[in-house]
Amino acid sequence: MPDEILNDISHRRYNPLRGSWLLVSPHRTKRPWQGQQEAPGKTTLPNYDPECYLCPGNKRAQGDTNPEYENTFIFVNDYAAVKEEQADYAPTEQDGSLANRLLRVEPVTGRCYVLTFSKAHNLTLADITPVEILPIIHAWTSIYTAHLSPSSPLAHTASSTTLPPSSHEGSFAAPTAQYRYMQIFENKGAAMGCSNPHPHGQIWVTTGLPEEPELELTQLQKYRRQQGGANMLVDYAELEMAKGERTVFENAAFMAVCPWWATWPFEVMVLSKEHKRALVDFNDEERGLLAEVLSEVTRRYDNLFETQFPYSMGLHQAPLEGTREEIEASHFHIHFYPPLLRSATVRKFLVGYELMAEPQRDITPEQAAARLRACGGELYRKKL
Amino acid sequence: MPDEILNDISHRRYNPLRGSWLLVSPHRTKRPWQGQQEAPGKTTLPNYDPECYLCPGNKRAQGDTNPEYENTFIFVNDYAAVKEEQADYAPTEQDGSLANRLLRVEPVTGRCYVLTFSKAHNLTLADITPVEILPIIHAWTSIYTAHLSPSSPLAHTASSTTLPPSSHEGSFAAPTAQYRYMQIFENKGAAMGCSNPHPHGQIWVTTGLPEEPELELTQLQKYRRQQGGANMLVDYAELEMAKGERTVFENAAFMAVCPWWATWPFEVMVLSKEHKRALVDFNDEERGLLAEVLSEVTRRYDNLFETQFPYSMGLHQAPLEGTREEIEASHFHIHFYPPLLRSATVRKFLVGYELMAEPQRDITPEQAAARLRACGGELYRKKL
Ligand SMILES: O=P(O)(O)O[C@H]1O[C@H](CO)[C@@H](O)[C@H](O)[C@H]1O
Ligand SMILES: O=P(O)(O)O[C@H]1O[C@H](CO)[C@@H](O)[C@H](O)[C@H]1O
Repeated sequence: MPDEILNDISHRRYNPLRGSWLLVSPHRTKRPWQGQQEAPGKTTLPNYDPECYLCPGNKRAQGDTNPEYENTFIFVNDYAAVKEEQADYAPTEQDGSLANRLLRVEPVTGRCYVLTFSKAHNLTLADITPVEILPIIHAWTSIYTAHLSPSSPLAHTASSTTLPPSSHEGSFAAPTAQYRYMQIFENKGAAMGCSNPHPHGQIWVTTGLPEEPELELTQLQKYRRQQGGANMLVDYAELEMAKGERTVFENAAFMAVCPWWATWPFEVMVLSKEHKRALVDFNDEERGLLAEVLSEVTRRYDNLFETQFPYSMGLHQAPLEGTREEIEASHFHIHFYPPLLRSATVRKFLVGYELMAEPQRDITPEQAAARLRACGGELYRKKL
Repeated sequence: MPDEILNDISHRRYNPLRGSWLLVSPHRTKRPWQGQQEAPGKTTLPNYDPECYLCPGNKRAQGDTNPEYENTFIFVNDYAAVKEEQADYAPTEQDGSLANRLLRVEPVTGRCYVLTFSKAHNLTLADITPVEILPIIHAWTSIYTAHLSPSSPLAHTASSTTLPPSSHEGSFAAPTAQYRYMQIFENKGAAMGCSNPHPHGQIWVTTGLPEEPELELTQLQKYRRQQGGANMLVDYAELEMAKGERTVFENAAFMAVCPWWATWPFEVMVLSKEHKRALVDFNDEERGLLAEVLSEVTRRYDNLFETQFPYSMGLHQAPLEGTREEIEASHFHIHFYPPLLRSATVRKFLVGYELMAEPQRDITPEQAAARLRACGGELYRKKL
């Protein structure tokens, strides 16, 4: 049990993974809400939409036609934020040292992929079974492998990983460069900027190591050095298993917790219990257990407010290329950042104070976890 | 002129004020938008709303009645995120060192104020004149002064600052503790979590120095040490005045720029050109010029898409209590973070990649500044 008093007083909690603090004001949900209401997620979508650029057999923006795929299908984003080919650019020494100090810039190349999660236009991770989620995990694993540096300590492991012969449909040319990092993520729901409800995620690879994984990698390496080789997140999983009060779900290989330092109201972190550096470290059984935990988290989310629960979700794991220390300090985990706070239509806004000063949350992570624990079982939509 | 090529290629820019990077993908606005649309801001509000808890003469949630105030009115938030009185809490050594390392917590006390900007329910900073904005600046200055540590190097300056006799209506008991930091901010518009359109801002004071000002203070102090006492933001203002391409507006004392490292599409930073540590460093004339720049920025925002432009805005300045080095390294500035990207109804979502990896923007700050420069003149609503 955490100190009961933390349900009543304002306090700050520390996020050791980012090295940052957040403000918790548990009494604050009592205030009335007269602000913006979200539209509840549509549940009356067709199974196939002729206008959708992700449905099997349909045409995409640049004229390509999607195959009649069965499960997952991957292609290079038609409106990619980073590309492999662009004009060369080496920042020139600018006029005077002031500009060099204050107007710093570097070019970025990379690739952006889209990965569909199902051929059905109207299904989500919450609707499908763990067995149907498995092909997505296979696809992530094979794409990660295809971009892994041959000199990574993970390359050997990756080459001995056996996946089903075709772990996804769609193909892509071999990357033309060795990229540093791969970010796999999903934006779900209009409230999280998703512009097409067809279930899909994205995968961006870049020449640089982006801010968030860099922050985490710095903290993970520091912990490892200070704690004689221990992994922060393995230690954390052990601690949470012993405490139980922030646990949402666990199976033999994974646990889903509302972390001690959660920012979003119902934020969840999925953690591997044993030390796993990246997707390629998992065996068949573990991939099955990962599918189960993804299914449990997303189904509980939808059940919580009986709605299509919006979120951004992302995988953090070892960089594609890095020092041995970086690879070994990495630990596979998934963040779920969902905005809803009180109901299907009232979200938490991380705005003024949060942007200018410090993230602030209104319910405690322990309260959030207790509610999500109680939301297991069948998907509410199936019971209607 | 910046390298023209930066309009065409993906690149990262460095934010020296936070010590962080962001991804710029200038070609990306070409993608079609089928996602969420914002409701355009209502413009048909009454001048007085009997249901509004901020209008003069109305009753508030806890039963207090607002005075018949003329300009600005301040009170302690009825649903405050931090309070002066709460049960004492000293985190106990938890069971084992793991918990001490990974479940860190500290209590926070403080005060949250609400400050109305006008007695009229339906006006915004963009609607009123600089002369009408001045009382808000007076109120901010007097509240900052009331919370300043008597041992701050700023205390002497503050005591010689002369403001109009009553710089705001409403009163509050003297703070019961010396707080470390004051965050002044405004959330405007439903898209930025504002729950009442009556023009108002908030002021939160806390025992701790929050994350964002702490990051900035660290960077500002580092720069000062490395550059023989120079101030990063004074140097930056000088550089931007010389370049011009990111300038939105300037007068004798202030400039408004879309910073080189802007994250939000039309992000603006208002900077004092000379080194000013906090509000109390300004004289009468400078306060007038600050009112002018606030008016210019908010009016241009509304003119850009002919809408009530939503944003979060916040002041960064010296902490209420700090070391001499912290106070001297501080430099007064204001951040405006507005979400709209393409029109009154299409915003930028900082979601999946942005939350998991790194902020990403679609137009360059130079393009944003050029558009805001061209939006001066009378408020579009007055011309209808
Ligand atoms: O205090 P308000 O205006 O009710 O609430 C708004 O601003 C607060 C401070 O930025 C946020 O914590 C809330 O999420 C937001 O809705
Ligand atoms: O790529 P999409 O789904 O069109 O766009 C969405 O995800 C991107 C990556 O997080 C964001 O940059 C966009 O703001 C968001 O609308």
